[in-house]
Amino acid sequence: MNKCTEISIIETCKFLSEHDNYAILTHMSPDGDALGSGFGLCMVLRSLGKKAEVVCPDGIPEKFKFITDSIKPDGSLRTTVVSVDIADEKLLGSARKEYEGRISLAIDHHVSNTGYSELLYLDVKASAVCECIYDIAKQMNVPLNLQLASAVYTGISTDSGCFKYGNTTPKTHRIAAELMEIGINFAEINRAMFDTKSRERLKMESMAVENAEYWYDGQAVVMFMSLDMIRESGCTADDLEGLSAIARCVEGISVAATVREREEGVYKVSLRTFGGVDASEICSEFGGGGHKVAAGCVISGTPDGVKKRLQHAIGGALELI
Amino acid sequence: MNKCTEISIIETCKFLSEHDNYAILTHMSPDGDALGSGFGLCMVLRSLGKKAEVVCPDGIPEKFKFITDSIKPDGSLRTTVVSVDIADEKLLGSARKEYEGRISLAIDHHVSNTGYSELLYLDVKASAVCECIYDIAKQMNVPLNLQLASAVYTGISTDSGCFKYGNTTPKTHRIAAELMEIGINFAEINRAMFDTKSRERLKMESMAVENAEYWYDGQAVVMFMSLDMIRESGCTADDLEGLSAIARCVEGISVAATVREREEGVYKVSLRTFGGVDASEICSEFGGGGHKVAAGCVISGTPDGVKKRLQHAIGGALELI
Repeated sequence: MNKCTEISIIETCKFLSEHDNYAILTHMSPDGDALGSGFGLCMVLRSLGKKAEVVCPDGIPEKFKFITDSIKPDGSLRTTVVSVDIADEKLLGSARKEYEGRISLAIDHHVSNTGYSELLYLDVKASAVCECIYDIAKQMNVPLNLQLASAVYTGISTDSGCFKYGNTTPKTHRIAAELMEIGINFAEINRAMFDTKSRERLKMESMAVENAEYWYDGQAVVMFMSLDMIRESGCTADDLEGLSAIARCVEGISVAATVREREEGVYKVSLRTFGGVDASEICSEFGGGGHKVAAGCVISGTPDGVKKRLQHAIGGALELI
Repeated sequence: MNKCTEISIIETCKFLSEHDNYAILTHMSPDGDALGSGFGLCMVLRSLGKKAEVVCPDGIPEKFKFITDSIKPDGSLRTTVVSVDIADEKLLGSARKEYEGRISLAIDHHVSNTGYSELLYLDVKASAVCECIYDIAKQMNVPLNLQLASAVYTGISTDSGCFKYGNTTPKTHRIAAELMEIGINFAEINRAMFDTKSRERLKMESMAVENAEYWYDGQAVVMFMSLDMIRESGCTADDLEGLSAIARCVEGISVAATVREREEGVYKVSLRTFGGVDASEICSEFGGGGHKVAAGCVISGTPDGVKKRLQHAIGGALELI
């Protein structure tokens, strides 16, 4: 993939103004930033008189439809392919077959971007790709109307944990201030994003807490969700999104593990670590990876077997700090 | 209380510069904004060469001690009494006896401020009183050092739900941006404020969810916590703070009630409403009150009796929308 060329925002805007008939690709299991930046870019391009459509490999969760519902297909020939918020072509999901190797421009903020596109506009300081879309709109003199501002705000708010996480910057806040002045209903957006849970989700959370295990004198917490528990809760896939946020809240822990059975005997592990424990190191023992403070892997086996192996790996990492 | 005079920020700063030997009063059960604004104002006054001490009627929760721990008594004679974030003298708690009727200046953002002080600087647009402290520091040319900036950020972040709630303004975000540029560890502050829960708290939350009742086809949810449940969870008073946030997350509700037994047979009810249901109307039936979307009251009786009366009142309010 050595053909990938990193370009500036000026060059990015030049590219966007010189092309037409866009397909904008978002990653599978789309989140607020994927949809906010994908549909946001689509709105920017249409404002410039271009044809542009968003390609979503998966269905759009209900709570994001206020961003996407009014953006109907416009007959774009989809000859200029741009990806947003996609670090790796693998994340194209069902769109991979059609678009792999055909992506002209990637707009991203992941330091781990694999350079799969011809051109790459990468801003690793951006809390969300929606910050890049904001910059592009400004650079191209596209006015931020209510709908575009709402899309951009949603991406920024969701990726920054509502300005809570370390990826938030002064610029993130200043963009939010400007978007609010356009009149977006930010409180309603945030309520839908952060403060709305189905009964089933609440039940799943409470079952996860009830069944939590504490290892190594409470230095590690493990929340284990079997297929049986998920069935019992009545949760859909949407309901289960972001469940690892529960384990990471436990006071005094260094490692928070959320283990979710994806199919019979196959467990997806999400790790969050604090105080110097290396999450990606632990996950790499099982062929997974990620960042130092957040990583993931898949372990197969019996519930007890999976727990034992995970416990051993966590124990090893705790000894190192 | 017709002696209360509302003053501008300029007059407030003039008052602060012309007096000395401050006692700064915070409300009982102090939260992030009470402590951030109280200790923040104390730092501002000391920067100006004044003597100033903060009077906290209750103990300071562990998670706020990073704001308060290094601010030791300085021998202030406590002759100039200023309150921060106190809407009503009743909220002085154990400090009421000593300071009631003696408050020269109140700095507040509650529209419901009762005008108990001689002078009042009221900014109802401020998400937190800490925004007022920021304005005062700016006006008086007091540089925002790391400690002052951390205190102010904490108040703003906690009172706005980390910029999530409708009281957040563009100004709130722009202040946050400036505070971040001073180098505060905002991610750590937010983790301590929003993403850290004791095991006991998690257990209490899961018990509340397990025992939740849904009324009127799911339009109302009631989470009921008896003294027995609280004892079983092992929660302290600190652990129980903000528990009403759980009920308000349930999807599709118009009324979220959190009912907590305070002493044998005496129940504190916290209501949050959506979609036009008047929470203060419901609570006024039981001698309580508050805002349209958030109100509280106390009901005494048996668990079933309390639920029945509350259910009836909520049913009446739901019929009106």
